[in-house]
Amino acid sequence: MVGMSTAHSEEELLEVTPKTEVNRVPEYQSHKVSDLYDVLDSALVAHIAYVRDGVPIVIPMGFARIDNALVIHGSSGAGMSLLAREGVTVTATVTVLDGLVYEESLFASSLNYRSAMIFGSATLVEGEAKLEALRVISERLMPGRWDETPEPTKKEMAATSVLSIPLDEVSVKLRGGGPDCDPIEGLWTGHVPISMTLGEARTAPGVQAPVSDSVRQAHELFERQMCAPDDRE
Amino acid sequence: MVGMSTAHSEEELLEVTPKTEVNRVPEYQSHKVSDLYDVLDSALVAHIAYVRDGVPIVIPMGFARIDNALVIHGSSGAGMSLLAREGVTVTATVTVLDGLVYEESLFASSLNYRSAMIFGSATLVEGEAKLEALRVISERLMPGRWDETPEPTKKEMAATSVLSIPLDEVSVKLRGGGPDCDPIEGLWTGHVPISMTLGEARTAPGVQAPVSDSVRQAHELFERQMCAPDDRE
Repeated sequence: MVGMSTAHSEEELLEVTPKTEVNRVPEYQSHKVSDLYDVLDSALVAHIAYVRDGVPIVIPMGFARIDNALVIHGSSGAGMSLLAREGVTVTATVTVLDGLVYEESLFASSLNYRSAMIFGSATLVEGEAKLEALRVISERLMPGRWDETPEPTKKEMAATSVLSIPLDEVSVKLRGGGPDCDPIEGLWTGHVPISMTLGEARTAPGVQAPVSDSVRQAHELFERQMCAPDDRE
Repeated sequence: MVGMSTAHSEEELLEVTPKTEVNRVPEYQSHKVSDLYDVLDSALVAHIAYVRDGVPIVIPMGFARIDNALVIHGSSGAGMSLLAREGVTVTATVTVLDGLVYEESLFASSLNYRSAMIFGSATLVEGEAKLEALRVISERLMPGRWDETPEPTKKEMAATSVLSIPLDEVSVKLRGGGPDCDPIEGLWTGHVPISMTLGEARTAPGVQAPVSDSVRQAHELFERQMCAPDDRE
Protein backbone atom coordinates (compact mmCIF):
# COMPACT_ATOMS: atom_id res chain seq x y z
CA MET A 1 0.00 0.00 0.00
CA VAL A 2 2.80 2.39 0.87
CA GLY A 3 4.92 0.79 -1.82
CA MET A 4 6.86 -1.23 0.69
CA SER A 5 7.47 -4.87 1.47
CA THR A 6 4.23 -6.73 1.96
CA ALA A 7 3.33 -7.96 5.41
CA HIS A 8 4.83 -11.20 6.64
CA SER A 9 2.46 -13.79 7.88
CA GLU A 10 2.75 -13.61 11.66
CA GLU A 11 3.64 -17.29 11.72
CA GLU A 12 6.70 -16.70 9.58
CA LEU A 13 10.20 -16.54 11.03
CA LEU A 14 12.57 -13.60 10.75
CA GLU A 15 15.64 -14.11 8.62
CA VAL A 16 18.92 -14.42 10.50
CA THR A 17 21.85 -12.38 9.18
CA PRO A 18 25.27 -11.61 10.69
CA LYS A 19 23.84 -8.29 11.91
CA THR A 20 20.75 -9.77 13.57
CA GLU A 21 22.33 -12.72 15.34
CA VAL A 22 22.34 -12.05 19.08
CA ASN A 23 25.58 -12.98 20.85
CA ARG A 24 24.72 -11.98 24.40
CA VAL A 25 22.13 -14.22 26.12
CA PRO A 26 21.07 -15.77 22.79
CA GLU A 27 18.21 -17.62 24.54
CA TYR A 28 16.35 -14.29 24.73
CA GLN A 29 16.35 -13.91 20.95
CA SER A 30 13.07 -14.53 19.17
CA HIS A 31 12.74 -15.20 15.47
CA LYS A 32 8.95 -14.93 15.39
CA VAL A 33 7.40 -12.25 13.25
CA SER A 34 4.48 -12.19 15.72
CA ASP A 35 6.87 -11.20 18.53
CA LEU A 36 8.35 -8.42 16.39
CA TYR A 37 4.91 -7.03 15.63
CA ASP A 38 3.94 -7.25 19.31
CA VAL A 39 6.98 -5.18 20.36
CA LEU A 40 6.18 -2.56 17.75
CA ASP A 41 2.53 -2.48 18.78
CA SER A 42 3.45 -1.95 22.45
CA ALA A 43 5.61 1.16 22.05
CA LEU A 44 4.93 4.69 20.83
CA VAL A 45 8.54 5.84 20.39
CA ALA A 46 11.44 4.37 18.42
CA HIS A 47 15.06 5.43 18.82
CA ILE A 48 16.30 6.05 15.29
CA ALA A 49 20.04 6.33 14.69
CA TYR A 50 22.06 7.44 11.69
CA VAL A 51 25.70 8.34 11.37
CA ARG A 52 26.73 11.97 10.82
CA ASP A 53 30.48 12.69 10.46
CA GLY A 54 31.26 9.36 12.10
CA VAL A 55 29.10 10.07 15.15
CA PRO A 56 25.78 8.30 15.81
CA ILE A 57 22.78 10.60 16.13
CA VAL A 58 19.97 8.91 18.09
CA ILE A 59 16.55 10.56 17.96
CA PRO A 60 13.33 9.44 19.69
CA MET A 61 10.45 9.50 17.21
CA GLY A 62 6.80 8.47 17.12
CA PHE A 63 6.27 5.67 14.63
CA ALA A 64 3.82 3.15 13.26
CA ARG A 65 4.03 -0.13 11.40
CA ILE A 66 2.48 -0.43 7.95
CA ASP A 67 2.60 -3.94 6.52
CA ASN A 68 6.25 -4.92 6.79
CA ALA A 69 7.75 -1.47 7.31
CA LEU A 70 8.29 1.03 10.09
CA VAL A 71 7.13 4.52 9.16
CA ILE A 72 8.16 7.73 10.88
CA HIS A 73 7.44 11.36 10.16
CA GLY A 74 9.43 14.49 10.75
CA SER A 75 10.13 17.97 9.50
CA SER A 76 11.11 18.11 5.83
CA GLY A 77 14.09 20.23 6.83
CA ALA A 78 15.42 17.80 9.46
CA GLY A 79 18.79 16.19 8.90
CA MET A 80 17.42 12.69 8.48
CA SER A 81 14.71 13.79 6.02
CA LEU A 82 17.33 15.48 3.82
CA LEU A 83 19.55 12.39 3.91
CA ALA A 84 16.60 10.10 3.11
CA ARG A 85 16.30 11.64 -0.37
CA GLU A 86 19.14 9.34 -1.38
CA GLY A 87 18.29 6.63 1.15
CA VAL A 88 20.11 6.74 4.47
CA THR A 89 21.41 3.84 6.56
CA VAL A 90 19.56 3.82 9.85
CA THR A 91 19.02 1.60 12.84
CA ALA A 92 15.74 1.83 14.72
CA THR A 93 15.49 0.32 18.17
CA VAL A 94 12.12 -0.06 19.86
CA THR A 95 12.16 -1.00 23.52
CA VAL A 96 9.42 -1.81 25.98
CA LEU A 97 10.37 -2.06 29.64
CA ASP A 98 8.15 -4.70 31.25
CA GLY A 99 9.45 -5.20 34.76
CA LEU A 100 12.10 -5.61 37.42
CA VAL A 101 13.33 -9.14 38.12
CA TYR A 102 14.70 -9.79 41.62
CA GLU A 103 16.96 -12.84 41.51
CA GLU A 104 19.07 -14.32 44.32
CA SER A 105 22.00 -12.08 43.34
CA LEU A 106 22.24 -8.68 41.71
CA PHE A 107 24.48 -10.16 39.04
CA ALA A 108 21.64 -12.46 37.94
CA SER A 109 18.91 -9.84 38.47
CA SER A 110 17.60 -8.18 35.36
CA LEU A 111 14.90 -6.21 33.65
CA ASN A 112 11.99 -7.72 31.76
CA TYR A 113 11.88 -6.11 28.36
CA ARG A 114 10.99 -6.58 24.73
CA SER A 115 13.13 -4.94 22.10
CA ALA A 116 13.60 -4.91 18.35
CA MET A 117 16.64 -3.56 16.51
CA ILE A 118 15.86 -2.83 12.88
CA PHE A 119 18.66 -2.36 10.34
CA GLY A 120 17.90 -0.77 7.01
CA SER A 121 17.77 2.14 4.69
CA ALA A 122 15.20 4.88 5.29
CA THR A 123 13.61 6.25 2.15
CA LEU A 124 11.01 8.95 1.58
CA VAL A 125 7.37 8.01 1.10
CA GLU A 126 5.66 10.25 -1.46
CA GLY A 127 2.29 10.88 -3.06
CA GLU A 128 -0.90 9.23 -1.85
CA ALA A 129 1.06 6.75 0.21
CA LYS A 130 2.46 9.66 2.22
CA LEU A 131 -0.99 10.87 3.31
CA GLU A 132 -2.00 7.31 4.17
CA ALA A 133 1.18 6.82 6.21
CA LEU A 134 0.53 10.04 8.12
CA ARG A 135 -2.97 8.82 8.87
CA VAL A 136 -1.66 5.50 10.19
CA ILE A 137 1.01 7.18 12.35
CA SER A 138 -1.60 9.57 13.69
CA GLU A 139 -4.09 6.78 14.40
CA ARG A 140 -1.34 4.93 16.23
CA LEU A 141 -0.46 7.79 18.57
CA MET A 142 -3.93 9.37 18.87
CA PRO A 143 -6.46 6.82 17.64
CA GLY A 144 -9.66 8.40 16.35
CA ARG A 145 -8.24 11.92 16.17
CA TRP A 146 -7.86 11.91 12.37
CA ASP A 147 -11.64 12.14 11.90
CA GLU A 148 -12.01 14.88 14.53
CA THR A 149 -9.55 17.29 12.92
CA PRO A 150 -9.24 18.93 9.48
CA GLU A 151 -7.34 17.02 6.78
CA PRO A 152 -3.68 18.19 6.56
CA THR A 153 -3.22 21.21 4.28
CA LYS A 154 -0.84 21.25 1.28
CA LYS A 155 1.50 23.47 3.26
CA GLU A 156 1.50 21.07 6.22
CA MET A 157 2.13 18.13 3.89
CA ALA A 158 5.07 19.94 2.29
CA ALA A 159 6.55 20.71 5.69
CA THR A 160 6.38 17.03 6.71
CA SER A 161 8.49 14.13 5.50
CA VAL A 162 7.52 10.51 5.90
CA LEU A 163 10.28 7.91 6.00
CA SER A 164 9.91 4.17 5.62
CA ILE A 165 12.27 1.48 6.90
CA PRO A 166 11.58 -2.10 5.76
CA LEU A 167 11.38 -4.76 8.49
CA ASP A 168 13.63 -7.13 6.58
CA GLU A 169 16.67 -7.27 8.87
CA VAL A 170 15.56 -7.27 12.48
CA SER A 171 16.79 -8.64 15.76
CA VAL A 172 14.21 -9.25 18.50
CA LYS A 173 15.02 -9.92 22.16
CA LEU A 174 12.53 -10.75 24.89
CA ARG A 175 12.82 -11.45 28.60
CA GLY A 176 9.59 -12.09 30.47
CA GLY A 177 8.22 -13.69 33.63
CA GLY A 178 9.82 -14.36 36.99
CA PRO A 179 13.34 -15.16 38.16
CA ASP A 180 15.33 -18.14 36.89
CA CYS A 181 16.85 -19.00 40.27
CA ASP A 182 15.51 -21.63 42.62
CA PRO A 183 13.95 -20.34 45.86
CA ILE A 184 16.52 -19.80 48.58
CA GLU A 185 15.93 -19.63 52.32
CA GLY A 186 15.10 -16.22 53.75
CA LEU A 187 15.35 -14.08 50.59
CA TRP A 188 12.38 -12.89 48.55
CA THR A 189 12.71 -13.38 44.82
CA GLY A 190 10.15 -12.50 42.20
CA HIS A 191 9.32 -9.83 39.69
CA VAL A 192 7.41 -6.57 39.54
CA PRO A 193 5.66 -5.58 36.30
CA ILE A 194 6.08 -2.14 34.72
CA SER A 195 3.48 -0.64 32.43
CA MET A 196 2.89 2.63 30.64
CA THR A 197 -0.19 4.37 31.98
CA LEU A 198 -2.31 7.10 30.44
CA GLY A 199 -3.69 9.54 33.02
CA GLU A 200 -6.77 11.73 33.04
CA ALA A 201 -7.36 14.19 30.21
CA ARG A 202 -6.55 17.83 31.01
CA THR A 203 -8.68 20.27 29.07
CA ALA A 204 -6.87 23.38 27.80
CA PRO A 205 -7.99 26.66 29.42
CA GLY A 206 -11.00 28.20 27.70
CA VAL A 207 -12.06 25.05 25.84
CA GLN A 208 -15.82 24.42 26.13
CA ALA A 209 -16.09 21.21 24.10
CA PRO A 210 -16.34 17.92 26.03
CA VAL A 211 -13.33 15.58 26.01
CA SER A 212 -13.11 13.99 22.54
CA ASP A 213 -14.01 10.38 21.94
CA SER A 214 -10.46 9.90 20.62
CA VAL A 215 -9.12 10.29 24.16
CA ARG A 216 -11.27 7.35 25.25
CA GLN A 217 -9.79 5.35 22.37
CA ALA A 218 -6.27 6.25 23.55
CA HIS A 219 -7.13 4.97 27.04
CA GLU A 220 -8.38 1.72 25.52
CA LEU A 221 -5.16 1.34 23.53
CA PHE A 222 -3.04 1.76 26.64
CA GLU A 223 -5.12 -0.65 28.71
CA ARG A 224 -5.09 -3.28 25.97
CA GLN A 225 -1.52 -3.11 24.76
CA MET A 226 0.89 -1.12 26.92
CA CYS A 227 1.91 -3.85 29.31
CA ALA A 228 3.75 -7.17 29.14
CA PRO A 229 1.89 -9.89 27.18
CA ASP A 230 1.60 -12.10 30.28
CA ASP A 231 0.00 -9.22 32.23
CA ARG A 232 -2.71 -8.57 29.66
CA GLU A 233 -6.28 -9.52 30.44
CA MET B 1 34.66 9.26 42.89
CA VAL B 2 34.55 7.09 39.83
CA GLY B 3 37.46 9.06 38.38
CA MET B 4 35.16 11.06 36.12
CA SER B 5 34.19 14.68 35.69
CA THR B 6 33.00 16.22 38.91
CA ALA B 7 29.34 17.12 39.23
CA HIS B 8 28.12 20.37 37.77
CA SER B 9 26.22 22.64 40.03
CA GLU B 10 22.59 22.19 39.02
CA GLU B 11 22.37 25.92 38.40
CA GLU B 12 25.07 25.77 35.75
CA LEU B 13 24.33 25.82 32.06
CA LEU B 14 25.31 23.14 29.57
CA GLU B 15 27.91 24.09 27.01
CA VAL B 16 26.65 24.56 23.46
CA THR B 17 28.66 22.90 20.71
CA PRO B 18 27.88 22.34 17.00
CA LYS B 19 26.72 18.83 17.93
CA THR B 20 24.41 19.88 20.74
CA GLU B 21 22.70 22.82 19.08
CA VAL B 22 19.10 21.88 18.29
CA ASN B 23 17.88 22.97 14.86
CA ARG B 24 14.31 21.62 14.94
CA VAL B 25 11.97 23.47 17.33
CA PRO B 26 14.89 25.17 19.12
CA GLU B 27 12.48 26.61 21.72
CA TYR B 28 12.25 23.13 23.24
CA GLN B 29 15.97 23.02 23.93
CA SER B 30 17.06 23.49 27.54
CA HIS B 31 20.56 24.40 28.62
CA LYS B 32 19.96 23.80 32.31
CA VAL B 33 22.01 21.13 34.06
CA SER B 34 19.06 20.64 36.43
CA ASP B 35 16.84 19.67 33.47
CA LEU B 36 19.47 17.20 32.23
CA TYR B 37 19.70 15.56 35.63
CA ASP B 38 15.90 15.42 35.89
CA VAL B 39 15.62 13.55 32.56
CA LEU B 40 18.27 11.08 33.66
CA ASP B 41 16.59 10.60 37.03
CA SER B 42 13.21 9.87 35.37
CA ALA B 43 14.28 7.00 33.10
CA LEU B 44 15.67 3.55 33.73
CA VAL B 45 16.88 2.76 30.21
CA ALA B 46 19.21 4.64 27.85
CA HIS B 47 19.59 3.88 24.15
CA ILE B 48 23.32 3.65 23.56
CA ALA B 49 24.63 3.76 20.01
CA TYR B 50 28.02 3.06 18.52
CA VAL B 51 29.11 2.52 14.95
CA ARG B 52 30.16 -0.94 13.77
CA ASP B 53 31.27 -1.31 10.14
CA GLY B 54 29.51 1.95 9.29
CA VAL B 55 26.18 0.82 10.77
CA PRO B 56 24.77 2.23 14.03
CA ILE B 57 24.11 -0.34 16.74
CA VAL B 58 21.53 0.93 19.24
CA ILE B 59 21.17 -1.00 22.49
CA PRO B 60 18.78 -0.33 25.38
CA MET B 61 20.68 -0.46 28.67
CA GLY B 62 19.99 0.24 32.33
CA PHE B 63 22.09 3.16 33.53
CA ALA B 64 22.75 5.54 36.38
CA ARG B 65 24.30 8.95 36.78
CA ILE B 66 27.36 9.37 38.98
CA ASP B 67 28.44 12.97 39.42
CA ASN B 68 28.78 14.26 35.86
CA ALA B 69 28.87 10.93 34.03
CA LEU B 70 26.48 8.29 32.77
CA VAL B 71 27.50 4.79 33.84
CA ILE B 72 26.30 1.57 32.25
CA HIS B 73 27.18 -2.04 32.81
CA GLY B 74 27.27 -5.02 30.53
CA SER B 75 28.92 -8.32 29.83
CA SER B 76 32.71 -8.11 29.56
CA GLY B 77 32.46 -10.00 26.30
CA ALA B 78 29.92 -7.67 24.68
CA GLY B 79 30.95 -5.70 21.60
CA MET B 80 30.80 -2.34 23.27
CA SER B 81 32.80 -3.49 26.32
CA LEU B 82 35.57 -4.77 24.07
CA LEU B 83 35.64 -1.51 22.10
CA ALA B 84 35.66 0.55 25.30
CA ARG B 85 39.14 -0.74 26.16
CA GLU B 86 40.46 1.87 23.75
CA GLY B 87 37.58 4.32 24.28
CA VAL B 88 34.68 4.12 21.85
CA THR B 89 32.61 6.96 20.40
CA VAL B 90 29.05 6.56 21.59
CA THR B 91 25.82 8.49 21.71
CA ALA B 92 23.39 7.83 24.55
CA THR B 93 19.83 9.04 24.24
CA VAL B 94 17.53 8.98 27.25
CA THR B 95 13.87 9.65 26.57
CA VAL B 96 10.88 10.02 28.85
CA LEU B 97 7.46 10.08 27.23
CA ASP B 98 5.23 12.38 29.30
CA GLY B 99 1.99 12.72 27.38
CA LEU B 100 -0.17 13.17 24.30
CA VAL B 101 -0.95 16.74 23.23
CA TYR B 102 -4.16 17.23 21.26
CA GLU B 103 -3.93 20.48 19.29
CA GLU B 104 -6.42 21.91 16.81
CA SER B 105 -4.71 20.05 13.96
CA LEU B 106 -2.76 16.82 13.79
CA PHE B 107 0.13 18.67 12.21
CA ALA B 108 0.47 20.79 15.38
CA SER B 109 -0.31 17.90 17.75
CA SER B 110 2.64 16.38 19.52
CA LEU B 111 3.98 14.31 22.35
CA ASN B 112 5.17 15.68 25.65
CA TYR B 113 8.61 14.33 26.29
CA ARG B 114 11.95 14.99 27.90
CA SER B 115 15.09 13.75 26.19
CA ALA B 116 18.83 14.04 26.45
CA MET B 117 21.31 13.12 23.72
CA ILE B 118 24.80 12.60 25.13
CA PHE B 119 27.84 12.57 22.84
CA GLY B 120 31.10 11.19 24.10
CA SER B 121 33.61 8.45 24.46
CA ALA B 122 32.80 5.46 26.64
CA THR B 123 35.71 4.19 28.71
CA LEU B 124 36.03 1.31 31.16
CA VAL B 125 35.74 1.95 34.89
CA GLU B 126 38.13 -0.24 36.89
CA GLY B 127 39.14 -1.06 40.45
CA GLU B 128 37.23 0.17 43.48
CA ALA B 129 35.34 2.67 41.34
CA LYS B 130 33.89 -0.24 39.38
CA LEU B 131 32.29 -1.85 42.43
CA GLU B 132 30.95 1.53 43.53
CA ALA B 133 29.49 2.18 40.06
CA LEU B 134 27.79 -1.22 40.09
CA ARG B 135 26.30 -0.40 43.47
CA VAL B 136 24.95 2.92 42.19
CA ILE B 137 23.48 1.35 39.02
CA SER B 138 21.90 -1.38 41.13
CA GLU B 139 20.50 1.11 43.65
CA ARG B 140 19.05 3.08 40.76
CA LEU B 141 17.19 0.12 39.23
CA MET B 142 16.39 -1.77 42.43
CA PRO B 143 16.88 0.61 45.35
CA GLY B 144 17.70 -1.17 48.62
CA ARG B 145 18.45 -4.51 46.98
CA TRP B 146 22.23 -4.20 47.34
CA ASP B 147 22.02 -4.72 51.10
CA GLU B 148 19.63 -7.66 50.76
CA THR B 149 21.87 -9.72 48.47
CA PRO B 150 25.44 -11.07 48.71
CA GLU B 151 28.26 -8.81 47.52
CA PRO B 152 29.28 -9.61 43.89
CA THR B 153 31.85 -12.38 43.64
CA LYS B 154 35.22 -12.00 41.91
CA LYS B 155 33.92 -14.12 39.06
CA GLU B 156 30.82 -11.96 38.67
CA MET B 157 32.96 -8.81 38.73
CA ALA B 158 35.23 -10.21 36.01
CA ALA B 159 32.24 -11.08 33.84
CA THR B 160 30.88 -7.53 34.11
CA SER B 161 32.20 -4.37 32.49
CA VAL B 162 31.30 -0.87 33.63
CA LEU B 163 31.49 1.94 31.10
CA SER B 164 31.44 5.65 31.82
CA ILE B 165 30.39 8.45 29.47
CA PRO B 166 31.04 12.03 30.62
CA LEU B 167 28.08 14.43 30.50
CA ASP B 168 30.16 17.14 28.85
CA GLU B 169 28.47 17.38 25.44
CA VAL B 170 24.72 17.00 25.83
CA SER B 171 21.62 18.24 24.11
CA VAL B 172 18.40 18.40 26.15
CA LYS B 173 14.92 18.87 24.70
CA LEU B 174 11.71 19.25 26.68
CA ARG B 175 8.06 19.69 25.74
CA GLY B 176 5.58 19.90 28.58
CA GLY B 177 2.10 21.13 29.43
CA GLY B 178 -0.95 21.67 27.27
CA PRO B 179 -1.52 22.70 23.65
CA ASP B 180 -0.20 25.92 22.18
CA CYS B 181 -3.29 26.66 20.09
CA ASP B 182 -6.09 28.98 21.15
CA PRO B 183 -9.42 27.31 21.95
CA ILE B 184 -11.57 26.79 18.87
CA GLU B 185 -15.31 26.28 18.73
CA GLY B 186 -16.55 22.72 19.00
CA LEU B 187 -13.21 20.87 19.22
CA TRP B 188 -11.67 19.58 22.41
CA THR B 189 -7.98 20.37 22.86
CA GLY B 190 -5.82 19.47 25.81
CA HIS B 191 -3.27 16.93 26.91
CA VAL B 192 -3.20 13.53 28.55
CA PRO B 193 -0.25 12.64 30.81
CA ILE B 194 1.68 9.37 30.45
CA SER B 195 3.58 7.81 33.32
CA MET B 196 5.51 4.65 34.00
CA THR B 197 3.78 2.54 36.64
CA LEU B 198 5.13 -0.25 38.81
CA GLY B 199 2.59 -2.97 39.49
CA GLU B 200 2.20 -5.44 42.32
CA ALA B 201 5.09 -7.73 43.25
CA ARG B 202 4.77 -11.34 42.03
CA THR B 203 6.51 -13.80 44.30
CA ALA B 204 8.36 -16.62 42.55
CA PRO B 205 6.85 -20.11 43.08
CA GLY B 206 8.10 -21.81 46.25
CA VAL B 207 9.46 -18.64 47.88
CA GLN B 208 8.44 -18.37 51.55
CA ALA B 209 10.07 -15.05 52.44
CA PRO B 210 7.85 -11.95 52.55
CA VAL B 211 8.23 -9.36 49.79
CA SER B 212 11.50 -7.49 50.36
CA ASP B 213 11.61 -3.94 51.63
CA SER B 214 13.51 -3.04 48.46
CA VAL B 215 10.33 -3.55 46.43
CA ARG B 216 8.60 -0.92 48.56
CA GLN B 217 11.51 1.41 47.81
CA ALA B 218 11.10 0.77 44.07
CA HIS B 219 7.41 1.68 44.33
CA GLU B 220 8.37 4.90 46.12
CA LEU B 221 10.86 5.74 43.36
CA PHE B 222 8.25 5.27 40.65
CA GLU B 223 5.62 7.33 42.48
CA ARG B 224 8.08 10.15 43.16
CA GLN B 225 9.93 10.39 39.88
CA MET B 226 8.43 8.47 36.96
CA CYS B 227 6.04 11.10 35.69
CA ALA B 228 6.24 14.59 34.19
CA PRO B 229 7.58 17.25 36.59
CA ASP B 230 4.29 19.18 36.46
CA ASP B 231 2.35 16.02 37.41
CA ARG B 232 4.42 15.31 40.53
CA GLU B 233 2.94 15.89 43.96
